[in-house]
Amino acid sequence: MGHRPDVTRALAEWIVACPSTAIPEEIRTEGVRTFVNWLGCAIGGATHETVDRALAAVAPFSGAPEASVLGRSERLDPLHAALINGISSHVLDYDDTHLKTIIHPAGPVASALLAIAETRPVTGTAFLDALIIGVETECRIGNAVYPDHYDRGWHITGTAGVFGAAAATSRLLGLDVQATTWALGIAATQASGLREMFGTMCKSFHPGRAAQNGAFAAFLAQAGFDSSERAIEASRGFAQVMSDKQDYDEILDGLGTHWEAALNSYKPFACGIVIHPAIDGCIQLRDALGNDVDRIARVELTAHPLVLELTGKAEPRTGLEGKFSIFHAAASALLHGDGSPTAFTDEAVNDPALVALRRNVQVTTDPGCYEASVTIAVTLDDGRRLEKHIDRAIGSRERPLSDDRIEAKFRGQAAMVIGEQPCESVIQAAWQIAAMDDVGALARTCTPRPPTR
Amino acid sequence: MGHRPDVTRALAEWIVACPSTAIPEEIRTEGVRTFVNWLGCAIGGATHETVDRALAAVAPFSGAPEASVLGRSERLDPLHAALINGISSHVLDYDDTHLKTIIHPAGPVASALLAIAETRPVTGTAFLDALIIGVETECRIGNAVYPDHYDRGWHITGTAGVFGAAAATSRLLGLDVQATTWALGIAATQASGLREMFGTMCKSFHPGRAAQNGAFAAFLAQAGFDSSERAIEASRGFAQVMSDKQDYDEILDGLGTHWEAALNSYKPFACGIVIHPAIDGCIQLRDALGNDVDRIARVELTAHPLVLELTGKAEPRTGLEGKFSIFHAAASALLHGDGSPTAFTDEAVNDPALVALRRNVQVTTDPGCYEASVTIAVTLDDGRRLEKHIDRAIGSRERPLSDDRIEAKFRGQAAMVIGEQPCESVIQAAWQIAAMDDVGALARTCTPRPPTR
Repeated sequence: MGHRPDVTRALAEWIVACPSTAIPEEIRTEGVRTFVNWLGCAIGGATHETVDRALAAVAPFSGAPEASVLGRSERLDPLHAALINGISSHVLDYDDTHLKTIIHPAGPVASALLAIAETRPVTGTAFLDALIIGVETECRIGNAVYPDHYDRGWHITGTAGVFGAAAATSRLLGLDVQATTWALGIAATQASGLREMFGTMCKSFHPGRAAQNGAFAAFLAQAGFDSSERAIEASRGFAQVMSDKQDYDEILDGLGTHWEAALNSYKPFACGIVIHPAIDGCIQLRDALGNDVDRIARVELTAHPLVLELTGKAEPRTGLEGKFSIFHAAASALLHGDGSPTAFTDEAVNDPALVALRRNVQVTTDPGCYEASVTIAVTLDDGRRLEKHIDRAIGSRERPLSDDRIEAKFRGQAAMVIGEQPCESVIQAAWQIAAMDDVGALARTCTPRPPTR
Repeated sequence: MGHRPDVTRALAEWIVACPSTAIPEEIRTEGVRTFVNWLGCAIGGATHETVDRALAAVAPFSGAPEASVLGRSERLDPLHAALINGISSHVLDYDDTHLKTIIHPAGPVASALLAIAETRPVTGTAFLDALIIGVETECRIGNAVYPDHYDRGWHITGTAGVFGAAAATSRLLGLDVQATTWALGIAATQASGLREMFGTMCKSFHPGRAAQNGAFAAFLAQAGFDSSERAIEASRGFAQVMSDKQDYDEILDGLGTHWEAALNSYKPFACGIVIHPAIDGCIQLRDALGNDVDRIARVELTAHPLVLELTGKAEPRTGLEGKFSIFHAAASALLHGDGSPTAFTDEAVNDPALVALRRNVQVTTDPGCYEASVTIAVTLDDGRRLEKHIDRAIGSRERPLSDDRIEAKFRGQAAMVIGEQPCESVIQAAWQIAAMDDVGALARTCTPRPPTR
């Protein structure tokens, strides 16, 4: 093995000591975007059946109701709130993505932090510091083991996410290096989540449980509960046991100067990222077509084979199946300009006009086509033909979502959950998080307005 | 891959349908011994610092205090009680062992069941059914992946234990096959616990967390929270992701006719099983020596090299280090006949008489010596020499602990925690668990008597 740096301890030292002022302004700005995007997703997913069922199960065991369940009227102890808010934020597959590892970074980290921020005064500065440090931690640990770890079958948002939640909570609680090292160790020994669960309620359980378990790890460490101090790098530690690849330089090199947290991206559309170029291009074609959108006779897509492999469901019957149908997604984007959660309801996939159009969508695969690109040709009933090539979709790192688009996305999913006016207030407040004295107060506004009498 | 039985579902069908009357009497008897041994350990470990710290961390988050923390006055919600009682029962390394997999079966299973039994009426019959079915489930899943899974670095008591807790809780709650299948899946996606944590507080955290997570899996499934239905055997399921060996016949063959639960064994001594033959032999020599025990001049042990590798600490300074010192253990057994927790305190390892004797203990290694055997030669100051060969130690499957010894072990660790008289009452009641109408009532007697005024 040779000599190896004390990876876990060195990481803990940075988590504890990184000065707030050493986080560059553009990283803080990205942190705010990460937070706003996450908050919209957590409110937007709150009425999903997955959340209903998880809440029914946890309610009998909850401690003091100190923390909000975002988008709902229930209140729970902060660890259970972290679980449920983490589930909500991921349940629509609409949250953020660290594209190098396909970790969804905010779910484990922000869900832990906001729930804890309801139990003690936390300033916006302290909150953002912890959020950014947590995201940085999980993405770097992810980089160290990706792709082998993911290929083996681990849902990396859960397995790396638990470290992010532990790091962020340790920072928020002001733990010292010793306790933060233990927190990372207690996180390591709870790292879990199988990709086998994709397509079931357990997929969104993973970021929720990572938030809850990582936060709990920090509270245990605060109470003096110890763990291995080399939990990441030891020969029976996380990286060796759960991956064939271990590149510890990914964890320690350039800590505080190079920021993985800067690489977060935000989905514009509520489905797998592989269909995003098609939706993006179809919406642009719709804009060009104007009223002629009703005259579409044929749609031809040319994409990488992987796209069809992952999203080739020709006749989806449920909204969830619609997320795996490039045929439906293209039809919805052309006919309604919609790639938001409303495009992937049971009603939408069974709408006769959409069904008719999707049956006129053909997909040709071309291994020479880049995975993140697509070419779309639309032929109208009078023979006219329009073509659109998308090299990189909106939402990719090359074409990041603007603040306006993040805000529109927030509105599009959260307004129907908590009402339009409360939603606008939350959006405005969320953008101002950096200046807040008490972040927890924001959480308490993210709930449905009680019915007017 | 070829066709593979639906392992998870077939196991769930057995968990649901196994008739209480189909569990043979000798298996029920072993179940009672498993329960009594576990209860003594959970009470005996309750005052350990590890438990203090875990309790301090969980107390602010506990729900309604419906369940007892065994051996203590605190009360918690049943899931947190399962966690703490699971920690207590393993913290002294004194609990039960399924020797084929070195799973400690009762911690994850009994800790979940007894806490839940305080929230609803549970008969002794239903409790024992669930306990035996849970132990059977975890040991069979362990057999399917052992030893590769363990060799890779997984603490199998945590990773297999979570299935045991899920199975037992599903059975106790009366879940149907669908929900029980989901519970096993939700358990699979939480399977965790690294061997890297050995020597830290996280080691006993593993059975505790397995109890809590497995029970929670069953409550989630009861609320309709779904999971993969092939979580054990799928290509990205538990067995493939976490082990190079997958022998599914170990899970399904002879279910209900061959019982792994019959193979549970109980440690007579509060230390690693590898020193047990030496302690056993030294106690027998002490009995033979009578008053001459003070005249020992030299002790020579001959053992397999592994024994010295694991327990070769010549000068232990703490009670914990004493558990890894065959020199101390032999001296304590000769001088005091003691291999119980009182033999492994900080005071004991620093006792001058014990220090003097342990410095006269020599160990010779012999690869030809069976790992579970030892030869002990004692030379007295007048030149007399006594020898004792132990082929299999007390507590092994070949020489199982008698009910009397299990009871003495219970008394030896639990009386000092809850008081002698309450301890006797608990012991008597625990042996009678099969006939109880309300098992939860027993838990409420396992706490220290309030101080007399």
